[in-house]
Amino acid sequence: MKRTLGVCYYPEHWPMDQWAQDARDMVAAGLSWVRIGEFAWSRLEPSEGDFQFEWLDQAIETLGGAGLKIILGTPTATPPKWVLEKHPDMLAVDEQGQPRKFGSRRHYCFSHEGYKSESRRITRILAKRYGKNPHIAAWQTDNEYGCHDTTRSYSNAARVAFQDWLAQRYQSIDAMNRAWGNVFWSMEYDTFDQVDLPNLTVTEPNHPHMLAFRRFSSDQVVVFNRIQVDEIRAHSDAPIIHNYMGRVTDFDHYAVGADLDIASWDSYPIGFLSDRLEASDEHKARYLRQGDPDMQAFHHDLYRAVGKGRWWIMEQQPGPVNWAPYNPAPLNGMARLWAWEAFAHGAETVCYFRWRQAPFAQEQMHAGLKRPDGVDAPAMAECKQVADEIAQLSDVGTVSADVALIFDYHSCWAWESQPQGADFDMFRLALASYRALRRAGLSVDIISPNHAIDGYKLVLAPGLMHINDNLHQRLAEFDGLALLGPRTGLKTDELSIPIPMGPNVPMLDATVSLLESIPPNSAIALDGGGQFLHWFEHLEGQGEVVRKTRDGKPAIMRAGGLHYMAGWPDDDTYLDIVKTLCSAVEIETLNLPDGLRVRDTPSHRFYINYAPEPCEFDGVRINAADVVWVERV
Amino acid sequence: MKRTLGVCYYPEHWPMDQWAQDARDMVAAGLSWVRIGEFAWSRLEPSEGDFQFEWLDQAIETLGGAGLKIILGTPTATPPKWVLEKHPDMLAVDEQGQPRKFGSRRHYCFSHEGYKSESRRITRILAKRYGKNPHIAAWQTDNEYGCHDTTRSYSNAARVAFQDWLAQRYQSIDAMNRAWGNVFWSMEYDTFDQVDLPNLTVTEPNHPHMLAFRRFSSDQVVVFNRIQVDEIRAHSDAPIIHNYMGRVTDFDHYAVGADLDIASWDSYPIGFLSDRLEASDEHKARYLRQGDPDMQAFHHDLYRAVGKGRWWIMEQQPGPVNWAPYNPAPLNGMARLWAWEAFAHGAETVCYFRWRQAPFAQEQMHAGLKRPDGVDAPAMAECKQVADEIAQLSDVGTVSADVALIFDYHSCWAWESQPQGADFDMFRLALASYRALRRAGLSVDIISPNHAIDGYKLVLAPGLMHINDNLHQRLAEFDGLALLGPRTGLKTDELSIPIPMGPNVPMLDATVSLLESIPPNSAIALDGGGQFLHWFEHLEGQGEVVRKTRDGKPAIMRAGGLHYMAGWPDDDTYLDIVKTLCSAVEIETLNLPDGLRVRDTPSHRFYINYAPEPCEFDGVRINAADVVWVERV
Amino acid sequence: MKRTLGVCYYPEHWPMDQWAQDARDMVAAGLSWVRIGEFAWSRLEPSEGDFQFEWLDQAIETLGGAGLKIILGTPTATPPKWVLEKHPDMLAVDEQGQPRKFGSRRHYCFSHEGYKSESRRITRILAKRYGKNPHIAAWQTDNEYGCHDTTRSYSNAARVAFQDWLAQRYQSIDAMNRAWGNVFWSMEYDTFDQVDLPNLTVTEPNHPHMLAFRRFSSDQVVVFNRIQVDEIRAHSDAPIIHNYMGRVTDFDHYAVGADLDIASWDSYPIGFLSDRLEASDEHKARYLRQGDPDMQAFHHDLYRAVGKGRWWIMEQQPGPVNWAPYNPAPLNGMARLWAWEAFAHGAETVCYFRWRQAPFAQEQMHAGLKRPDGVDAPAMAECKQVADEIAQLSDVGTVSADVALIFDYHSCWAWESQPQGADFDMFRLALASYRALRRAGLSVDIISPNHAIDGYKLVLAPGLMHINDNLHQRLAEFDGLALLGPRTGLKTDELSIPIPMGPNVPMLDATVSLLESIPPNSAIALDGGGQFLHWFEHLEGQGEVVRKTRDGKPAIMRAGGLHYMAGWPDDDTYLDIVKTLCSAVEIETLNLPDGLRVRDTPSHRFYINYAPEPCEFDGVRINAADVVWVERV
Ligand SMILES: [Zn+2]
Ligand SMILES: [Zn+2]
Ligand SMILES: [Zn+2]
Repeated sequence: MKRTLGVCYYPEHWPMDQWAQDARDMVAAGLSWVRIGEFAWSRLEPSEGDFQFEWLDQAIETLGGAGLKIILGTPTATPPKWVLEKHPDMLAVDEQGQPRKFGSRRHYCFSHEGYKSESRRITRILAKRYGKNPHIAAWQTDNEYGCHDTTRSYSNAARVAFQDWLAQRYQSIDAMNRAWGNVFWSMEYDTFDQVDLPNLTVTEPNHPHMLAFRRFSSDQVVVFNRIQVDEIRAHSDAPIIHNYMGRVTDFDHYAVGADLDIASWDSYPIGFLSDRLEASDEHKARYLRQGDPDMQAFHHDLYRAVGKGRWWIMEQQPGPVNWAPYNPAPLNGMARLWAWEAFAHGAETVCYFRWRQAPFAQEQMHAGLKRPDGVDAPAMAECKQVADEIAQLSDVGTVSADVALIFDYHSCWAWESQPQGADFDMFRLALASYRALRRAGLSVDIISPNHAIDGYKLVLAPGLMHINDNLHQRLAEFDGLALLGPRTGLKTDELSIPIPMGPNVPMLDATVSLLESIPPNSAIALDGGGQFLHWFEHLEGQGEVVRKTRDGKPAIMRAGGLHYMAGWPDDDTYLDIVKTLCSAVEIETLNLPDGLRVRDTPSHRFYINYAPEPCEFDGVRINAADVVWVERV
Repeated sequence: MKRTLGVCYYPEHWPMDQWAQDARDMVAAGLSWVRIGEFAWSRLEPSEGDFQFEWLDQAIETLGGAGLKIILGTPTATPPKWVLEKHPDMLAVDEQGQPRKFGSRRHYCFSHEGYKSESRRITRILAKRYGKNPHIAAWQTDNEYGCHDTTRSYSNAARVAFQDWLAQRYQSIDAMNRAWGNVFWSMEYDTFDQVDLPNLTVTEPNHPHMLAFRRFSSDQVVVFNRIQVDEIRAHSDAPIIHNYMGRVTDFDHYAVGADLDIASWDSYPIGFLSDRLEASDEHKARYLRQGDPDMQAFHHDLYRAVGKGRWWIMEQQPGPVNWAPYNPAPLNGMARLWAWEAFAHGAETVCYFRWRQAPFAQEQMHAGLKRPDGVDAPAMAECKQVADEIAQLSDVGTVSADVALIFDYHSCWAWESQPQGADFDMFRLALASYRALRRAGLSVDIISPNHAIDGYKLVLAPGLMHINDNLHQRLAEFDGLALLGPRTGLKTDELSIPIPMGPNVPMLDATVSLLESIPPNSAIALDGGGQFLHWFEHLEGQGEVVRKTRDGKPAIMRAGGLHYMAGWPDDDTYLDIVKTLCSAVEIETLNLPDGLRVRDTPSHRFYINYAPEPCEFDGVRINAADVVWVERV
Repeated sequence: MKRTLGVCYYPEHWPMDQWAQDARDMVAAGLSWVRIGEFAWSRLEPSEGDFQFEWLDQAIETLGGAGLKIILGTPTATPPKWVLEKHPDMLAVDEQGQPRKFGSRRHYCFSHEGYKSESRRITRILAKRYGKNPHIAAWQTDNEYGCHDTTRSYSNAARVAFQDWLAQRYQSIDAMNRAWGNVFWSMEYDTFDQVDLPNLTVTEPNHPHMLAFRRFSSDQVVVFNRIQVDEIRAHSDAPIIHNYMGRVTDFDHYAVGADLDIASWDSYPIGFLSDRLEASDEHKARYLRQGDPDMQAFHHDLYRAVGKGRWWIMEQQPGPVNWAPYNPAPLNGMARLWAWEAFAHGAETVCYFRWRQAPFAQEQMHAGLKRPDGVDAPAMAECKQVADEIAQLSDVGTVSADVALIFDYHSCWAWESQPQGADFDMFRLALASYRALRRAGLSVDIISPNHAIDGYKLVLAPGLMHINDNLHQRLAEFDGLALLGPRTGLKTDELSIPIPMGPNVPMLDATVSLLESIPPNSAIALDGGGQFLHWFEHLEGQGEVVRKTRDGKPAIMRAGGLHYMAGWPDDDTYLDIVKTLCSAVEIETLNLPDGLRVRDTPSHRFYINYAPEPCEFDGVRINAADVVWVERV
């Protein structure tokens, strides 16, 4: 399969007589795909049952007729006003107890049965009408589940559904009381319908109560999505996709992905650097117009896992956006670099968002491939260059990685439910781990904790609070190296402390006897250099100590290939630890210049330079914001 | 007309037998005016219809009899408890949906019809009773509209009134949907009564929705004020004044001012430095006890425009206040300096707030001319000195300025509705522009965008998001220099992007093809020195480039005298740009020492030294916190 | 009486067959006391009237039979779900108007009559059943009143009770209006039932309104506690204790303490450093694993006063906790040091919290003497060491201090109600005063403003906003030195400014004519070195000036032994001022190394080294985190 490009387009925003020219221009720009429809409900059904499909028929015919393949989105992220009037209690409720009103998007509670029916109904109607249309080559369900903190709702609908979910999970209220340790502060319940949502409590709610609500809320997203998938599959053979948003960890993306054919995500490197990355001011200034060098790749590798190998970028930032605290323009070249980095990680398709900048409404300051006046924006030329380059290059393919990083949503929720420290979360640790691997020049797989690990030479599993029996078994049988910890295997599945205490590493005689979180201006120095930040665990036991703190405590212990790391290394220390492990299993690591990253495909090695200055490596010169590939030998 | 001094006084706070002595002391201190009554409703009408005017009659007679002219305030900023009990839903509602309770002041919603009736009623009764009283020489409507974030209310009354306002403005709901681009996220409405207030939405509301609510809320203030003006005018010939509060931009002060005879504002230089000025720690430490050198003058020049030439200080800070994060005492001399700076900018009257520090309630830590125990506070001697100096100086007068700065409230709301960057607003840019002009030694007019500009040699119009046809015409005909931008002319009146795209400068072939907001630790270097902060626009077109960025992009372009500036200069760069423009039209600029400011009247030049150290300029020595004037030749 | 150790234990958390071994291990560890029962309501009365006392009978018999004395807690901090269902409006309401929901603890409003009845009922039943049980050697009422900001509630129950309280206090509404100065903004009331709680007002509520609500809320705690005390006393002779929480100043601890036999507090030095101490980053890093050197001692001396001489630590941190922003582990030795510091200050008993770390619920990350798996935690050995050392040392005793610091809760509320500056409160000033005395090597008494002061050589009374007649009289008769100020004696009992104005120091001709709050980066330099921060008062009058500011204003004035200090000295300046005063009355002061503190008992001098490095003083070497005592000669 050749790599392809696409774009997001809103025919309902533009005069009908402009569509044909737009379609021709898209094709001329080298685009193969166009996504439409995902916010158009008020134009498809302006009032209940009053369907207006002619315009969409026409748009599909115009775009498809020009040779474009269409991704049709279900419009359920933006129910029109009449749906709200029919179901006034369908609004999500925020953690402070306030309904989240109409007037933007994602204004619904995943648990509201009435809205789920509306969602099923409109999806069915669209699937029936367009399921066999030859131009509809893919479907998108809804849009960016969880964006704007919309996974969890504190509504009545959610409360009732949560009570049902608890009853299903625990069957008996006593079982739940025991599982949660509700005896602790006389928090015991007599019936499931006494259990409220865990907001607005006097001090923090019970941690398993918080965790259960996160699991429930995630399941609600899975169910909501599955309803749409089932309706579409009944009428269409085209693949079904959802476009996940970056650094959203409130629901289990693997679980939603299990029902999809292809995973995709929306990549906004500069916005994410501004609004969802912990980094020093220096780092943020250096990468202001490029985005963090590892943030995108992390998601690429994650969604390759979520999509079971098949993944896309559904929305690729082309220029400044509107929603971050600061919205600078990308360096010239970045719109091309980002696309190629995605392809290097195995993306089948990269769709730029959007075709033409809208001159109105909330996203009018969000750049497109074209300006509002129709003139090409800077990204257009880069898009065309990518299209030309694609044509000359080999097919989509993914290299067999030596290294895997286990990333788990349940652990994200466990960290949130029991943070124990103020300035970090599970994602931050996972990204730090990934950064170390990338700075060592490695091509990485991100995998779920349910994924097989045999075949990898090195597996990292940081922060995986609970190790279930299956994973324990896989680790016991693993013949590569594994680096577990910190905070791995320290909890039961219900977020209590197991007896015997963790980290529960097969064969390793090690117990975390004490652990501590540390403020930013303190650190745990390691013997021979390096340091732990944020987090440190005191390890006891007879396991082999392979690295110590400066005052002689174990920093890393191991049994065979299974290593447990007792703290959170700073970036350079993490890199050093990773390189040491790699050399033990003969994985070649690289000494990359600052900002340069490398990714292999079966046929090529890609050099991706996020730095604002050129560099030279391995005899290859890579300009600032440039990507260069060489054939692998 | 001679300049005059006045003071704010609350006879209801003090024993009746103290009033006569207070009146004599006021006269002895050189005061001509005394403002009374504006918070006294519970004493004027303790229960509905139970009027108690004897004490006010007596107070007026005592003060007036001693020779003082009285400004009588309507008491509508503090409706008594019984008014609330009669109209329980008259409270404003905050953005989180909570009613803002009784127990301080300004506890009313501008849209509540019942409260508007009460306001009209009490005003009419006061106007009838005192409209012809010879001692009542002026009226004040209400008190500090908008203070404590009270312009916008999210009440039911406001929602209904907003729907009516929208219906009036747009006539058809389709027109509104189109104007706002509501198709964008299926936000289309079928009827006006479906439109809610733009709070508590899931993500940001549509920008024109926010802008419309700001315009509506401003109009509600105008209407509220006009009701009082109409009642007063029906019974009195005395001039009507409102006392605006510093850096309140939530309603259109020009529009309220159009109904008044005189504008006034409440000047708290030290409080404002502490609670509403963006500045470095060094700047704030240097001017801790003086206030920012340009903040007061900006407002002086603004309210001269709002008052169509006639303006006062209604409340002048005399010592430490109570409401800022930190409340230091002024340097000796500042109570005099602030008054003289106002007079230099054309003020007719400066009233100190207040006569005697109240020993009770919320403002008991707010200094007056007298201490709570009746002893003179430090400001008293300075007040008397000003009174003596006034007597010896020429009349009130305003110089004809060469330079104008356009300041527009609608643009403030447009910036708020569509900020695009996290750390700035329209006011901050306007003050930066003004500061550059002041540091160049210029006497400036601030004008509304509806004001004529012919006659000025130089006009600055930064941040004026929309240029309407009239202003466009005036610019086309202008024969001086104009410096537009950044962010000028980039939007339609409905806050969408015009096609063709801005900046819409007559004759100038220039288009903002791309724009970006920049975090604090980054900047755009200019060729030949200087830099842009916060904001940068990429300009295209054939217009003449008169200044470039270091990497060759246009920084300033022009056509004839019309210049467009593509970024937000830092203070020194802005000064340099202003000086360059001035030299082109032979406006003399000065190289003032740090903290010294200059303002001309027709007869004198005033040197105003905000610095904590003495300086010498033009052969004149000015002490710290001192003001010196010399006759103009 | 020998000093004793104890521990907090939750038999309901553990299998019954483990209790006997736990009891034996407690005794073996040298513990004399065990606290139980305070969160166990759902196990004692799972539904209304369904009492399940067998397990508690058994636990008491097992623990008591092993030789332990039992402190039995009333379980009223954690009403079970059925109590909530019976009284749905018993929840406290937060300042934003939201009920504070079930699911953690302290979910009740002190003003709710129904809950007060439930609290009385369960207390009576416990008192009846166990009042004569020989193993019940003490009682604890509730748990940590005020923790999690629970003193003040904005519920309907609180509103009605507040109105009654006001009617009792003021008798006539006119009296209240006058006392509060409600004329100020027409805030006058006609009846008490018009007075609302002082939340959600447009700008700040009237300060005496805020103060009255604080006084009322404190009284509600006193009443709530007294109900339990009365029930217990009716059936038991064992002493009654409450366990106060550190830095909780929302209710009057002296007033609650007046009804108790013994005061106790819960000491979490490392948590408090992280979450409730204003200090530089350097200070916080240096004492990260020890806690602030003066925070604990301040509370020790405070609760000795609250307990009228008899006081305990009811909960002593033994290792990392779970609730602070950062939760590091203590240095080795600190669990012993903290206990000995308490004993040195006169504690009878120190109870570690808790016996065994719970593996479940909110506090599972809170260390105990044992780990969740039953292995000894690091603190166990230190506990045993303390037990051995106790046995060898003389009895509990308190030295007669030369120096007293007056600390007053009403002043804390006055500061909160009228802060006048953004970054300080009364507690911060009191701790700064105390720190100066401690750094001078002094043993200090903290006393209430109602306590006699004769017999002390030096009394400090900083920030005591109001000096009542009794204290005025005591000061007038005092023959030692007193250091009053800053902010002492400046207000009436109703938080208005007295005429004549303060500071109201007997014999001293001094008036605060002006005062100011100062931001962090500014200071008032003193003549001869040192500086004031945060706060400065301009003093007038003929009193003797004993210290000046650099620009010649009075910094300290005096009449005889009564000194008034006009500002807030930085730490070193405060130390210098204290030493100067001490030398005048021949109190010996010490030049202690950084981090070393000293406390005397009648028989011994204790050297307590909070520093992370060893020191030597007076010929004694004290290791890091060590405490050493020598007999006094
Ligand atoms: Zn077709
Ligand atoms: Zn008269
Ligand atoms: Zn017994």
